[in-house]
Amino acid sequence: MVDISVVRALAEELAGQVVADRRDFHRYPELGWSEFRTGSLVARRLTKAGWEVQLGRQVHDEAARMGVPSEDELAAEYERALRQGADAEFIRALRGGYTGVVGSRRFGEGPTIGLRVDMDALPIQEACSEEHRPYREGFVSQNPGIMHACGHDAHTAIGLALAEALPRLGASLPGKVKLIFQPAEEGVRGARSMVEAGIVDDVDLLLGIHVYTGWKLGEMIAGTGGYAATRKFDVRFEGKAAHAGSNPQQGRNALLAAANAVLNLYAISRHAEGLTRVNVGRLEAGAGRNMTPAEAWFMAETRGATTELNEYMYRRALEVIEGAAKMYGCGWSVREMGAAESAMSDADLSARIRRAAETLGGYTFLPLEPRGGSEDFTYMMRRVQARGGQAAGIALGADPLGISRRDPDRERVRGGHTSLFDIDEAVLPRAIELLLWLICDLLG
Amino acid sequence: MVDISVVRALAEELAGQVVADRRDFHRYPELGWSEFRTGSLVARRLTKAGWEVQLGRQVHDEAARMGVPSEDELAAEYERALRQGADAEFIRALRGGYTGVVGSRRFGEGPTIGLRVDMDALPIQEACSEEHRPYREGFVSQNPGIMHACGHDAHTAIGLALAEALPRLGASLPGKVKLIFQPAEEGVRGARSMVEAGIVDDVDLLLGIHVYTGWKLGEMIAGTGGYAATRKFDVRFEGKAAHAGSNPQQGRNALLAAANAVLNLYAISRHAEGLTRVNVGRLEAGAGRNMTPAEAWFMAETRGATTELNEYMYRRALEVIEGAAKMYGCGWSVREMGAAESAMSDADLSARIRRAAETLGGYTFLPLEPRGGSEDFTYMMRRVQARGGQAAGIALGADPLGISRRDPDRERVRGGHTSLFDIDEAVLPRAIELLLWLICDLLG
Amino acid sequence: MVDISVVRALAEELAGQVVADRRDFHRYPELGWSEFRTGSLVARRLTKAGWEVQLGRQVHDEAARMGVPSEDELAAEYERALRQGADAEFIRALRGGYTGVVGSRRFGEGPTIGLRVDMDALPIQEACSEEHRPYREGFVSQNPGIMHACGHDAHTAIGLALAEALPRLGASLPGKVKLIFQPAEEGVRGARSMVEAGIVDDVDLLLGIHVYTGWKLGEMIAGTGGYAATRKFDVRFEGKAAHAGSNPQQGRNALLAAANAVLNLYAISRHAEGLTRVNVGRLEAGAGRNMTPAEAWFMAETRGATTELNEYMYRRALEVIEGAAKMYGCGWSVREMGAAESAMSDADLSARIRRAAETLGGYTFLPLEPRGGSEDFTYMMRRVQARGGQAAGIALGADPLGISRRDPDRERVRGGHTSLFDIDEAVLPRAIELLLWLICDLLG
Amino acid sequence: MVDISVVRALAEELAGQVVADRRDFHRYPELGWSEFRTGSLVARRLTKAGWEVQLGRQVHDEAARMGVPSEDELAAEYERALRQGADAEFIRALRGGYTGVVGSRRFGEGPTIGLRVDMDALPIQEACSEEHRPYREGFVSQNPGIMHACGHDAHTAIGLALAEALPRLGASLPGKVKLIFQPAEEGVRGARSMVEAGIVDDVDLLLGIHVYTGWKLGEMIAGTGGYAATRKFDVRFEGKAAHAGSNPQQGRNALLAAANAVLNLYAISRHAEGLTRVNVGRLEAGAGRNMTPAEAWFMAETRGATTELNEYMYRRALEVIEGAAKMYGCGWSVREMGAAESAMSDADLSARIRRAAETLGGYTFLPLEPRGGSEDFTYMMRRVQARGGQAAGIALGADPLGISRRDPDRERVRGGHTSLFDIDEAVLPRAIELLLWLICDLLG
Repeated sequence: MVDISVVRALAEELAGQVVADRRDFHRYPELGWSEFRTGSLVARRLTKAGWEVQLGRQVHDEAARMGVPSEDELAAEYERALRQGADAEFIRALRGGYTGVVGSRRFGEGPTIGLRVDMDALPIQEACSEEHRPYREGFVSQNPGIMHACGHDAHTAIGLALAEALPRLGASLPGKVKLIFQPAEEGVRGARSMVEAGIVDDVDLLLGIHVYTGWKLGEMIAGTGGYAATRKFDVRFEGKAAHAGSNPQQGRNALLAAANAVLNLYAISRHAEGLTRVNVGRLEAGAGRNMTPAEAWFMAETRGATTELNEYMYRRALEVIEGAAKMYGCGWSVREMGAAESAMSDADLSARIRRAAETLGGYTFLPLEPRGGSEDFTYMMRRVQARGGQAAGIALGADPLGISRRDPDRERVRGGHTSLFDIDEAVLPRAIELLLWLICDLLG
Repeated sequence: MVDISVVRALAEELAGQVVADRRDFHRYPELGWSEFRTGSLVARRLTKAGWEVQLGRQVHDEAARMGVPSEDELAAEYERALRQGADAEFIRALRGGYTGVVGSRRFGEGPTIGLRVDMDALPIQEACSEEHRPYREGFVSQNPGIMHACGHDAHTAIGLALAEALPRLGASLPGKVKLIFQPAEEGVRGARSMVEAGIVDDVDLLLGIHVYTGWKLGEMIAGTGGYAATRKFDVRFEGKAAHAGSNPQQGRNALLAAANAVLNLYAISRHAEGLTRVNVGRLEAGAGRNMTPAEAWFMAETRGATTELNEYMYRRALEVIEGAAKMYGCGWSVREMGAAESAMSDADLSARIRRAAETLGGYTFLPLEPRGGSEDFTYMMRRVQARGGQAAGIALGADPLGISRRDPDRERVRGGHTSLFDIDEAVLPRAIELLLWLICDLLG
Repeated sequence: MVDISVVRALAEELAGQVVADRRDFHRYPELGWSEFRTGSLVARRLTKAGWEVQLGRQVHDEAARMGVPSEDELAAEYERALRQGADAEFIRALRGGYTGVVGSRRFGEGPTIGLRVDMDALPIQEACSEEHRPYREGFVSQNPGIMHACGHDAHTAIGLALAEALPRLGASLPGKVKLIFQPAEEGVRGARSMVEAGIVDDVDLLLGIHVYTGWKLGEMIAGTGGYAATRKFDVRFEGKAAHAGSNPQQGRNALLAAANAVLNLYAISRHAEGLTRVNVGRLEAGAGRNMTPAEAWFMAETRGATTELNEYMYRRALEVIEGAAKMYGCGWSVREMGAAESAMSDADLSARIRRAAETLGGYTFLPLEPRGGSEDFTYMMRRVQARGGQAAGIALGADPLGISRRDPDRERVRGGHTSLFDIDEAVLPRAIELLLWLICDLLG
Repeated sequence: MVDISVVRALAEELAGQVVADRRDFHRYPELGWSEFRTGSLVARRLTKAGWEVQLGRQVHDEAARMGVPSEDELAAEYERALRQGADAEFIRALRGGYTGVVGSRRFGEGPTIGLRVDMDALPIQEACSEEHRPYREGFVSQNPGIMHACGHDAHTAIGLALAEALPRLGASLPGKVKLIFQPAEEGVRGARSMVEAGIVDDVDLLLGIHVYTGWKLGEMIAGTGGYAATRKFDVRFEGKAAHAGSNPQQGRNALLAAANAVLNLYAISRHAEGLTRVNVGRLEAGAGRNMTPAEAWFMAETRGATTELNEYMYRRALEVIEGAAKMYGCGWSVREMGAAESAMSDADLSARIRRAAETLGGYTFLPLEPRGGSEDFTYMMRRVQARGGQAAGIALGADPLGISRRDPDRERVRGGHTSLFDIDEAVLPRAIELLLWLICDLLG
């Protein structure tokens, strides 16, 4: 077993690079399935560090991708990435929105550990104000309307740092490591296609990592869980236009079908066995004021404390949608845009994470407080667990203002998915240290 | 051709009897399909006056009856009728709610004239107050909650008077007369089954008669029309009960299906080609407060200025109902409770009615003002018209307070379907005179 | 401290009487606020056994009663009770539906223990079939449509048995006991008015008891809790009738207001902090098929895991109802019909109950599994707890078929609120034994 | 009185110019309130022809304008107009979207005749196909997404031709003529502000003109009418966003408020006294999939056969909207976007139009067939009629394929408001001839 001081030194040594990487990714955020710059640079770095790299169609099942942008959009993003310094060689394999990358390396006989990090950003316009460090220090987003407001820039940088560090500890790692760089976690769109491509089928121990604001540096959950299962889907009704003054009876009112669907989606009966949710986040219908709306479209989601509860909601949702269409003689279709399952970290693996953190010191452990959030890391967790392996998520506090989850003063938090989101970058070397030590421990 | 003075004398002679008959029927009002007393007495009188009588199943197509009470209700009404002086012999043929009666008589070679009168009363509690003549003069309804509040008592009495009078004019009537006593006009339930039984298939000229309050004695429409087509139907949703606290998700909420159906029935698009209507008059759903309602039921109707417009409404209504059921996974059924078509009197026959009235004198002719009302006499009109004959309705003013349709003071009218409804009985001999003269003219 | 054998002997001695009492109450079930026979007989028995009795308006705050039947209904029930053997003297104090009774007795210096039992039955027609013991053995309900289908007959009988037994142990009871016979637990209508009358303001330790089918004799919960808070309320909309064919625009459609209210009640947003429920159990609206419905009425309820969650639901429900009325220009009113709070048994008192049961032996302890049910005993619990006392509920298995809550075969259970509900009467002496031993222990 | 041959000759002489003008306006179509090029050129031409010109704020009441674009949009259109050959001098007075122009000229003692023509185009992309003459012959729209698809280019050109011709007949015109060039007829937004500015207050006889496809050249209505009254309005609901997974209860769902409003708008009761309509043509709500929609907006309209019926619809619509907002605790606002009244041409003036057409020959007169269409010329008609004058509209057939309103083959019609709309330009000189002859006749 490697000595703790070696791990600490290594993390310290990589601190500068990981911060620089995070800032680079922060400067060039990319939406889900468009991580052409990020993915190609990751592939280049993994290759350079001696990892075996799989990417593009090798790591994605085509049919299992969800919420993929149009070909035109992808093509435009591809060009943009090239202009912004993407690796000209590796990007080719990502064309068409197959932007996941996996690095594998065997260091000795032993089990396989997987670490999943996500790479995509959010459709948010980053704040350009002096109070916001990324702006103040010159790494604010260069892509209008897109922002790393959920920390995936940090996750990717951590993944790259491990790619550099692990080979340096190689002798102490009797086993294999897979670094999984996943696209399109926002909207829970990307994990399923990697799972269906078999990426985690050989993983014995699966880890995931996420940084959070609103938790102080050092606050952590060792073994996340309680994620809600979810379905994201777009619904379209097709009716028939008619002049509302002279021939209203000839119309087939798609807006009325949609209005009924929306109303009755919210009226789906509560379920006694746990949390359920439904939301219609955006609706558009119709064209001119004096025409019966011939088309209506909305984006919806269901959630459930468990996959079963979520499926109850989704099944009922489909009934409601079909019935609403029928009432107005409209056609309808539902397009799957994302999905995640419920999952819990394995207790045993979680305990080892906690022990590793305790050994390193400086950590406080927070209780799970499930509040309906979702994560598509759950697809990977469930697959590993289904095959007899173990999986666990690690959540690390990184509030830049030092706000604790226990503070009464939590309103000051600049939360995820907001234009002022930022992290305390001190979390980066600490995450590297923790993961290195943990991987050594798990393989040792 | 008979002399006008003969007709006048005959009407005068029958005046006492027709008033007495109307009051007798008023005293013993019977709801649709339960006209056991009325029908059996009509059959007795027709027979006695020498008419060939058809009744019961002979004059009704079983499948075309609509809105028939339950067998238990019919049986109870049958017993009631016997207690109230029904004809013990003829009532037997009416058993089971086949309460129509038709008297036929050929007086010579010539065309066949039909006259339709209706016999049923309404589910209204008649006023027992001194201001109401039927109470004051002792012929108020003896059947609780039932009342002749639409003048069908008068129509039946007029039909009987013609049965007495026509044979006395026999020599002047080269043709055949059919007196059609129809049950269940309220709710437009009875005519269709008589039409389907072929009752008007041999009729060349068909007449109908109706008395109205709010029009002064002498005001009339010669050739009614513009009736709205209508459908009356009951809708039932079958869901599944569940405890609303402990297992709400197991329920199939029939009330929610019904609420959606009702709301969207009213939202059926207006039609550019004319008047349409929809109404849900009564809804009941559910049982206990803490159970998902497993059953819901409502009574509805559609109307249209034409049969086509009404069918548009009904077709859309069925779509709405089916879609609403589907939204909540409920079963559904629709039961037809009544129907009428749109129809217009033939211009030629209407003109002859007007000429007959002008010859007799004392009539003012009102314009048609269609307001969405319905009549199932339209089934008979359409059948006669479809076979090449002519049909027309006669509407006679009979306001007991002498209020004219042209009065500004029309709020004082005690309208049809109210507990104070009454008529000016002077309309009775005048109607007899008009019809006798008209029939002589048409056959002469 | 009394010896355990004394308690056992006493329970055995009373076994015959308590079964006879339960069967007598079962034979004459009375709905909430109509427990005239039950309450008057309870008062007579308490008096005879030497307890100080308060009853009627002494134990009810008039304004806090909920869901009280009309005066006419109460008067009819009062007469019925007299015919069925009510105590002619005590019944007078119960007139008007003040049917609660409280017996108090001080045995020595020490704290005050309260025991609440409920007395009312349900609006269910009891099964008259040979497979149902109450029918087979001649104590089936004599009151049509009313049935003790929730075990309150047993609770009342247990309360009376304690009234006999406790004085026999008097020397060992340094304290005071209050036996609280509550009306109208069904629909959670009765407790609040007793609490508001101050009945539990002097109670230090409050106990409640309930028997259940679907749990085997011996299965118990020592310290019930997790009851959902609830509101029961009736909603009325007042619109304006109009003829649906000729003047639909003059109507104010109360049914459409109600349909919108119902639909949007179910659509009230889920709450992240715990279980919420809403239900509309029964709706009636309108009169005739061709009239705009002028009146609509429905019975609804909300529930919440906590009183706060329930109040969220109720507050939103009122907004929905008001908005729906406004949409259709209707008047509206809400009438409170019942209410309960959330509550938990005190851990300390629960532990003492468990210890008492363990001492007696033969008990298995079931975990709490809150499923959205409600109990108005919670009003009493909260009042006692608010004043510094402790409260706890005791739930005892009594399945007549010996079915355990752990059985896979639980579908065979003839559950509460069904026409075949029955209990294993062996629970009666065991409950007496447990309560006697517990009271001795608590006061000892 | 002028000789008919003079009028014919004058119309023939102007034929080339009017076609050229119509094609010029067709090439540069402008939306309502943005007729900067059209209006400024009209003002130039009127001035040059010797008419007294009022324009801009002189002819518009600011508060009575409806559906005006934003200042930014107007500014951009103003610049576009300048680039497209607007009159640099007159355009200044139109700045800010006050684009109406009125030319007045007194030729002698006598009454004042007004003629209203409209100038605006539609938001339709004109077809660029060989089958479409404007494309084939090089005068297809140069403004993307905007098209003269309702003939207002023709109306404006006719107005200008009259401005040239009338002075040539001056001696024969004992009276005054006002040529009213109105903006923003589409969406019925412009007339009211001209009426409120007093433009027609001195008019004794008011004429309007419109050309139609689907009617053959020569088919006309002399005295249009039966326009539906209408209200156009935008509705906005303001709620509150919340995360649909973690805090749904904190949201105020503006989409649910809007869905309820839409549904219940369509459910507003039919009216017995005539045609009513309601439509919601476009709805948008919400932002991200997982957020409670905080905003919703829709565009709606009501119509009625009369102003009273339309006001019934609008009044009920406001109740529905307010109630729906209340149900979901949302704020709401309604913005008026257009309006028109019902109106009928005066019989006397209509007869004179018909006589003029008969004198000229070659006209067939079509009956009125109101189908729910609206026109804001009705505001001008009503104002003139209210002050004791007379008003009438003239509708002229101009189908380019020669299709008659009586053809069975009417599906071939390329109707108004479609991308292939075109007219038979032969209608232009004929309209000039008819109007000249009519004005001479009316003043003569």
